[in-house]
Amino acid sequence: MGESERYRKGLERLQEMRNSSPIGARLCEIAPDLNRYIKEFAFGDVHSRPGLCKRERELVILASLATQGYAHEELKSHINMALNIGISKEEILEVFIQLAVYAGFPAAVNAVFLAKDVFDRRSEPFPKESTGQ
Amino acid sequence: MGESERYRKGLERLQEMRNSSPIGARLCEIAPDLNRYIKEFAFGDVHSRPGLCKRERELVILASLATQGYAHEELKSHINMALNIGISKEEILEVFIQLAVYAGFPAAVNAVFLAKDVFDRRSEPFPKESTGQ
Amino acid sequence: MGESERYRKGLERLQEMRNSSPIGARLCEIAPDLNRYIKEFAFGDVHSRPGLCKRERELVILASLATQGYAHEELKSHINMALNIGISKEEILEVFIQLAVYAGFPAAVNAVFLAKDVFDRRSEPFPKESTGQ
Amino acid sequence: MGESERYRKGLERLQEMRNSSPIGARLCEIAPDLNRYIKEFAFGDVHSRPGLCKRERELVILASLATQGYAHEELKSHINMALNIGISKEEILEVFIQLAVYAGFPAAVNAVFLAKDVFDRRSEPFPKESTGQ
Amino acid sequence: MGESERYRKGLERLQEMRNSSPIGARLCEIAPDLNRYIKEFAFGDVHSRPGLCKRERELVILASLATQGYAHEELKSHINMALNIGISKEEILEVFIQLAVYAGFPAAVNAVFLAKDVFDRRSEPFPKESTGQ
Amino acid sequence: MGESERYRKGLERLQEMRNSSPIGARLCEIAPDLNRYIKEFAFGDVHSRPGLCKRERELVILASLATQGYAHEELKSHINMALNIGISKEEILEVFIQLAVYAGFPAAVNAVFLAKDVFDRRSEPFPKESTGQ
Repeated sequence: MGESERYRKGLERLQEMRNSSPIGARLCEIAPDLNRYIKEFAFGDVHSRPGLCKRERELVILASLATQGYAHEELKSHINMALNIGISKEEILEVFIQLAVYAGFPAAVNAVFLAKDVFDRRSEPFPKESTGQ
Repeated sequence: MGESERYRKGLERLQEMRNSSPIGARLCEIAPDLNRYIKEFAFGDVHSRPGLCKRERELVILASLATQGYAHEELKSHINMALNIGISKEEILEVFIQLAVYAGFPAAVNAVFLAKDVFDRRSEPFPKESTGQ
Repeated sequence: MGESERYRKGLERLQEMRNSSPIGARLCEIAPDLNRYIKEFAFGDVHSRPGLCKRERELVILASLATQGYAHEELKSHINMALNIGISKEEILEVFIQLAVYAGFPAAVNAVFLAKDVFDRRSEPFPKESTGQ
Repeated sequence: MGESERYRKGLERLQEMRNSSPIGARLCEIAPDLNRYIKEFAFGDVHSRPGLCKRERELVILASLATQGYAHEELKSHINMALNIGISKEEILEVFIQLAVYAGFPAAVNAVFLAKDVFDRRSEPFPKESTGQ
Repeated sequence: MGESERYRKGLERLQEMRNSSPIGARLCEIAPDLNRYIKEFAFGDVHSRPGLCKRERELVILASLATQGYAHEELKSHINMALNIGISKEEILEVFIQLAVYAGFPAAVNAVFLAKDVFDRRSEPFPKESTGQ
Repeated sequence: MGESERYRKGLERLQEMRNSSPIGARLCEIAPDLNRYIKEFAFGDVHSRPGLCKRERELVILASLATQGYAHEELKSHINMALNIGISKEEILEVFIQLAVYAGFPAAVNAVFLAKDVFDRRSEPFPKESTGQ
């Protein structure tokens, strides 16, 4: 499987999750290779693996990003993708509440506030279009 | 719901997951209140919540502990509990492989090695008894 | 001791420290159970324990939050509570200067800047009212 | 104040806390300048500052090291120094119990276990001599 | 070598790197001793050491700050200093791309975005003056 | 460029650095795909990029791993590779001394001690053979 196939596979995965994060587009301008690795490796190689379903992968990713505490844009992007594939708002918040035990209350509270921002934004009248870039 | 009920609820949850970690017993000797909070709050209040199933909670916890990188005993304890409730070895490893993207390869590799220790130990002829303490 | 008593105890503790953080009110809207755990467990069970005085607990909490580096809202909230219970501005800054050695200069510098924001805000003519929520 | 004075001041401070950690001696062999900075800067400049008392500085340092999660040798060294200057075992454990809220239970539990190792070692018949190096 | 000499040496080093960060000036107002330690210890004692060249030290510092994930002001300050001493934009981005492997993609992506902010700001018509404070 | 080419390129890079870490062999047994990603992505795609030389990449990696604090096996592996490609012991220690400022003294001290272990092991009469796996 050549690189273009891995890239296409990653893009396909991101489109399945109706990714609309601006991260890819912003990376394209400044560090296109990092954007390419995200498509090829992060989503083409890893996220597309069969061992866990999309829903479970997103729960795992939400937990990791909320535990790190500093990855705000990525966490918002994955909260959006989680919602897009049918994980409910309540389930997303439940992940963060569970993390209060392991990562501490501040990490949990901050993730809940980022989730609120995402939820509020999605309920605004004119949602941003999905680009999948 | 009084404290003793919360404690009992946490203990029940730990028994459902056939917890056999020595952490509780060791904490009892030195900091019994911290052990009590783990039973009452971590497992009685939080882990027992209905919003996510046991399986999903364990995936979330494995992701958080592997991301932190330093919580070796707790990660081994939760790898054991994950196996006890039917999460397969392959699924546990899949969580850690997914984390290579978000927490970096060292966190993923270390978690995989801790998982190997747990898997090897469980396949030894005389497994430790579950105490649920 | 039932939950309502633990909640009341936590609220009482927060009122003793004249908590005016908006975190509780914001959590109530989106994740009320997490807010409840903060009152019941974080302040009712743990912060109210007799083993260390309020002043010492706040020094410990300031050190932990500044070391994590990402917990801005919580750190500002605890800088406010520290001032409310009589810890001086100089003592708060001293905690962060001490941390330059252990958590590195960036963590120390960021905490000092958050403290400056809190100090400046408190010296404005119309302070926010304490709600203790 | 020249460097030798700062070094002497740091050493004096370490002796006041009856430091017996092997860290200094081990560093001398491999990275003597790093050892010198610990004496001059960490203990001579910072730990000797008047803004907080020794007891409060140690509580702050214990909180920071336990929050980081990976600084085992340094945490054991400071648990020893905390005991040497009259902080009780119960107070040290209380710091770590408080941190379960902010840094999560795994960080708290690991710190408690390191404290137990230190406490056990100190109750052995032939304690190591204090060198202050 | 007395303190004033160490301070002067640190200031000299910062001027060699044409430091224009507002961090020093802001610290002077609120925690002047922390600012002094940055000059004396961080730049006078450590950054001025002969064992690695300035270019290599900056690569090391960029890697450490990007790995921490939360040190935004310091990272921007060191991206500026890196550019000032002749490290190219491409090399700075290359450091962060390399870190995707070790610290994870979110840390790498965030550092790339901070670098973009710095690059954009420097290409504006009226650059800020270097103060070296 | 197909996967096998990326794998071969990563392996080639690891051989150029005379990698003798047991990490790859241990991963092969338990999580061969993670081992493959290390070869293909970490060393084939990223470490082989032209933007920084091998020496600079290793300085960056040493800084990132030492800052994380928990990645002991990976840090030892990269200390070995750094030595293999001609970075001196003094330069490696210098990276860690520089990090005392940014990541704190405990991270720096721990990395120095791991370096000492690696240096001691390499000076033993029968060094382990390089396998590059």
